[in-house]
Amino acid sequence: MLTEDTLLGGRVRLRQPRDGLRAGLDAVMLAAAVPARPGERVLEAGCGSGAAFLCLAARVPGLRVTAVERDPVLAALARANAEANGLADRVEVLAGDIGDPALAHALAASARFDHAFANPPYWPGGTPPPADRRRAAVQEGEARLADWARFLAAPLAWRGTLALVLPAARLDAGLRALGDSGCGGPLVVPLWPRDALPAKRVLLRAVRGGRGPSRLAPGIALHRPGGGWTKAAAAILDAGAAIPEPA
Amino acid sequence: MLTEDTLLGGRVRLRQPRDGLRAGLDAVMLAAAVPARPGERVLEAGCGSGAAFLCLAARVPGLRVTAVERDPVLAALARANAEANGLADRVEVLAGDIGDPALAHALAASARFDHAFANPPYWPGGTPPPADRRRAAVQEGEARLADWARFLAAPLAWRGTLALVLPAARLDAGLRALGDSGCGGPLVVPLWPRDALPAKRVLLRAVRGGRGPSRLAPGIALHRPGGGWTKAAAAILDAGAAIPEPA
Repeated sequence: MLTEDTLLGGRVRLRQPRDGLRAGLDAVMLAAAVPARPGERVLEAGCGSGAAFLCLAARVPGLRVTAVERDPVLAALARANAEANGLADRVEVLAGDIGDPALAHALAASARFDHAFANPPYWPGGTPPPADRRRAAVQEGEARLADWARFLAAPLAWRGTLALVLPAARLDAGLRALGDSGCGGPLVVPLWPRDALPAKRVLLRAVRGGRGPSRLAPGIALHRPGGGWTKAAAAILDAGAAIPEPA
Repeated sequence: MLTEDTLLGGRVRLRQPRDGLRAGLDAVMLAAAVPARPGERVLEAGCGSGAAFLCLAARVPGLRVTAVERDPVLAALARANAEANGLADRVEVLAGDIGDPALAHALAASARFDHAFANPPYWPGGTPPPADRRRAAVQEGEARLADWARFLAAPLAWRGTLALVLPAARLDAGLRALGDSGCGGPLVVPLWPRDALPAKRVLLRAVRGGRGPSRLAPGIALHRPGGGWTKAAAAILDAGAAIPEPA
């Protein structure tokens, strides 16, 4: 059973399974954290039905997208979503597992990517049963955060960026995974549920071969005290802006 | 040449060299991040003239403090400051280098500490000349962040806390050093110069043997737009409060 939704105030049309992990805030914020410029090549791992790369392609014209998804049903859906958004000739979706050395090798042997990103399964745990798509999307399977970062970093161009969206609870593990993959100079962008509460999500972005300082951005408060998105959140979620680059 | 200053709205009297790295915000915030309770044992490394442990002792009655300082002049000053603040019988200042295995061994062999903390020299660099106290206090010498964390973690009790204050630029390195020292479940408390600017400083606190989630606290905005401390900063810097524990 599929639903048809829109993201970025209608700029992106997305068909997705009703009963899986549904795309939303995380995918849109992730796309907003990728500093891509027109014409660049980007790689997404674990794209699901394509929400993140579709949002990125809606913001940055002329991207060439390679996306990897383990679940062949979702991979086919991501392809169909690319087509429905007029991106069929710019998006290649590979059904494959990031733990597959042949896939990693093929990507690393292809042209370099300017940016790579993922909304990876983030909770340590056993390999989920294939039938359980929601669990598969949130629980680390055999591949761990470090494996995701390595998979994404390997085919990145020198100075290319690697972005992840993670629960704030995985901040430490995420930074370590990025560093161990050879990506440094991390930017941390907290997503605050509202004032005076700890962050629930963080966007992490590091630079392949980077050795610069860490940066901790003021981040984005999501919810107004009275309800609804803040202006800063709505600029990204509804109007399709990128996250503000820190001063 | 010494100056006589006060911290915590006059609760702490501090004599310190006029031309060294002068104690201020970092030391006070560090002390505010240590969740000590009356009667516990705490360890500070690189105490300088004692600002941080004096602030902590002013907030939490009955602490027993062991502090280590490489510079014997500063170590003597820290002892004198402890005495001037009525803490002579509760504070032991050891003149010694955290790179000295005999010192580390002696501390690890003594009673366990409930909390450990430091405002370490944070910039990678060569060993500074001994005459240059200001540089010695900010530049990593032969001991690196990881060495500081290991030195502080080794004599900690199980579930004891290890706190560091660092430039936000060293967030990644600081978390890694804490993790590698066996302290997990890190709390990150950003210190924001003011709204919409990246953090300049971070307080990091981890738990010996901890395996819990990372937590990213909303942190503390320091300066009001019109000048002066914010209410949250003044509560700590002038009124001697602890940092708010995140919800």
